[in-house]
Amino acid sequence: MPHTVDPVDSVPSIILVRPQMGENIGAAARAMLNFGLTDLRLVAPRDGWPSRRAADMASGAFDRFTPQLYDDLASAVADRQMVMATTARRRDMVKPVYSANSAMTKLTSRTALVFGPERTGLENEDLALCHALITIPVNPDFPSINLAQAVLLLGYEYRRHYHETPPDHLPLGDSEPASQKDMEDFMRRLEAELEAGHFYRDANLKPTMQRNIRNLFMRGHPTAQEIKTLHGVVSALIGNKKRRL
Amino acid sequence: MPHTVDPVDSVPSIILVRPQMGENIGAAARAMLNFGLTDLRLVAPRDGWPSRRAADMASGAFDRFTPQLYDDLASAVADRQMVMATTARRRDMVKPVYSANSAMTKLTSRTALVFGPERTGLENEDLALCHALITIPVNPDFPSINLAQAVLLLGYEYRRHYHETPPDHLPLGDSEPASQKDMEDFMRRLEAELEAGHFYRDANLKPTMQRNIRNLFMRGHPTAQEIKTLHGVVSALIGNKKRRL
Repeated sequence: MPHTVDPVDSVPSIILVRPQMGENIGAAARAMLNFGLTDLRLVAPRDGWPSRRAADMASGAFDRFTPQLYDDLASAVADRQMVMATTARRRDMVKPVYSANSAMTKLTSRTALVFGPERTGLENEDLALCHALITIPVNPDFPSINLAQAVLLLGYEYRRHYHETPPDHLPLGDSEPASQKDMEDFMRRLEAELEAGHFYRDANLKPTMQRNIRNLFMRGHPTAQEIKTLHGVVSALIGNKKRRL
Repeated sequence: MPHTVDPVDSVPSIILVRPQMGENIGAAARAMLNFGLTDLRLVAPRDGWPSRRAADMASGAFDRFTPQLYDDLASAVADRQMVMATTARRRDMVKPVYSANSAMTKLTSRTALVFGPERTGLENEDLALCHALITIPVNPDFPSINLAQAVLLLGYEYRRHYHETPPDHLPLGDSEPASQKDMEDFMRRLEAELEAGHFYRDANLKPTMQRNIRNLFMRGHPTAQEIKTLHGVVSALIGNKKRRL
């Protein structure tokens, strides 16, 4: 369930993960601005940045906003409270799947919409950082849509929904959704403690186990207060030991 | 009022009037096929036909259908029963204006969706051949969308209205949702371990803390497999201690 949307920063960020072609970055930027989106984040663009091809395709969009560069998806989503990834392929993950239309009713303040590289799409490690997946209902016999066009469709859906449909929401009381950095810090600590506790018996399965645990917590979409509680839970479970030593 | 749609040929034709760039024709064809549209009609393409640039951008769509060529819009729409034109600019005409979304509820058998040339758009003479206009709700400060992207958005709306959109769902793979008894057993165990770890410092707050933790896990809606994983997590965190004792 989404949290209450703060109108001031409910406009989603667009994150392109390892985009290959500058043309697509530029066309995506143009499509974003067509629908009023201006927070573009680039994770390790293949051909570097800035890009002349991107500028050519942006039709002036880069005069209106400047993309931010990141080394990895984790840092690009660190300040986001809700992260949704578009994906064409079916994934073997227990994670909610929304249509592009329905996804817009799940927006929170500080949402990120994440798009993978052309052709290959997002890695499972990227998806583990996301709360939900978004599918676009394409012709199954010819499903491959261009990166910039996927951005365009989400921008269109965003604009179509924004003023019309009040989103579903989750009343938070005095708390607010955890930032992805808080989430990451908690996951790191939990993973370190699990390592110390010999939880990962089979080294080959460790990445899958980590992803599964992460997916479970992402689905819960903890508040900042709940992350503190989870730290307290871990401290109580391991700290108990320390007191007994 | 819409007429009854004949399912056999309710799929709209896409008509590009005097398109300038072959690239845009190819990208439009690809976008059409992404959403199951295959009747493309070209009115006097500027650079002639066939076009190598169009073929390059179509990503194989022209292997699946062949565009028909026309000298003017009147002949391109001769067999159509409903003709709607996309237009960015406001026109001084007494003609219904529909949103892209709403336009899909007006489809009849043999509908045409008409798109004008890049930059200039449709002439008033073209619009006189149309029953209605379609607008796409763009950012008024940056409204110009690419020809192929306009086709994409109408194709998307068509498919959204005439094909089932898969409902939101949570793919479970080989697992199944945990029973409430499994959930309850896990919560009991966790609460007992938290009690042992002196997690509940203030007895008055204990019921609230328990409820908060439970709510977080309920939101995640764990699978049966994930409940087993959570037991493993607790065992690792407390068992670690036992090994060290």
